[in-house]
Amino acid sequence: MQIAIVLYDRFTALDAIGPYEMLCRTPGSETVFVAERPGPVSNDRGTLTLLAEKALDEVPRPDIVVVPGGPGQRDQMGNETLLGWLRAAAATSTWTTSVCTGSLLLGAAGLLRGRRATSHWLALDTLATFGAEPTGERVVVDGKVVTGAGVSAGIDMALTLLGKVADDEFAQSIQLGTEYDPQPPYDAGSPLKAPAAVVGRLRDGTSVFR
Amino acid sequence: MQIAIVLYDRFTALDAIGPYEMLCRTPGSETVFVAERPGPVSNDRGTLTLLAEKALDEVPRPDIVVVPGGPGQRDQMGNETLLGWLRAAAATSTWTTSVCTGSLLLGAAGLLRGRRATSHWLALDTLATFGAEPTGERVVVDGKVVTGAGVSAGIDMALTLLGKVADDEFAQSIQLGTEYDPQPPYDAGSPLKAPAAVVGRLRDGTSVFR
Repeated sequence: MQIAIVLYDRFTALDAIGPYEMLCRTPGSETVFVAERPGPVSNDRGTLTLLAEKALDEVPRPDIVVVPGGPGQRDQMGNETLLGWLRAAAATSTWTTSVCTGSLLLGAAGLLRGRRATSHWLALDTLATFGAEPTGERVVVDGKVVTGAGVSAGIDMALTLLGKVADDEFAQSIQLGTEYDPQPPYDAGSPLKAPAAVVGRLRDGTSVFR
Repeated sequence: MQIAIVLYDRFTALDAIGPYEMLCRTPGSETVFVAERPGPVSNDRGTLTLLAEKALDEVPRPDIVVVPGGPGQRDQMGNETLLGWLRAAAATSTWTTSVCTGSLLLGAAGLLRGRRATSHWLALDTLATFGAEPTGERVVVDGKVVTGAGVSAGIDMALTLLGKVADDEFAQSIQLGTEYDPQPPYDAGSPLKAPAAVVGRLRDGTSVFR
């Protein structure tokens, strides 16, 4: 089983690494980071560089596709090399998945028409422009397409997927091995829970997130 | 403010990237991945490569030190280049932190004597051999030393640290921006919660974790 994690300039690191850490120990699987061109790929802060091992065209038929989000997603919305690869890969994949605004790339590739899907809370409404039905859920499974909400939701998305790709007990062993027993010091992880001023600054783009 | 995240062969990716994602937007900060030698560093699966931008000796006085864990930690326990750097950096740092078995490296460097600290649940007892007082807590703050439990606990560790380095509101904006509103599909993230059979296989080393 081949798991392809897509990288592009200015992706958000945790979008890719959260699912990677949950999926990379799946028995009989090979995980590969892919990009339009192999080599170093910088994240949205320009302070982290991951190596893409293979070019997209070297990985034509992955069993699982993981598309992270990040500010760089906008520049990929018209990239037919990537969107065409996503379409072709999704045609033969067992699972096609995304984290955060990675779902907008699945949408741009035409893969979300008529499907329930999620994205970063700030991007949720945009999903409708691709014929998707946006839901505020953290993880959405619609047929073979699994989408996760913003950034850290990729961990929950991948654990959910792992229960289907392997089984519940294996997914639980990964949760225990990675000691995923979350205890955030604040309860501000959703616009419904965070202080209004904090939500406001993210909505109006005056926060550190662009 | 300089934030140095230490990399070494066979580190665990999420140990490093969880804290990175929470800390990398701190106003007035520079985040740098450091290793004994700059260049590519492979993770514990050999399927992920991060670039270390600088050598340890190029970053002698970071304000914040983050030491991830991973199977490769064992090979570093006698590495005086790394342990000496940790000692020197900790002498001038504002915060010295670790995730998972990274705390064993802080211990080997003599930085945990008489301090309360945590680590991956499977490594917790080992902390005592370094004169530390192991606690089962997910995040432990003892003076300027902040330790996190296994792998994913680095996210909670770093958010806790962020509240001190910046302020609660900024930390909440990062939690909201990364949509860190955890909803794991299972409740198996701690040996107190996971099924006994799952805990047993991790304890006896017959799981995918080594």
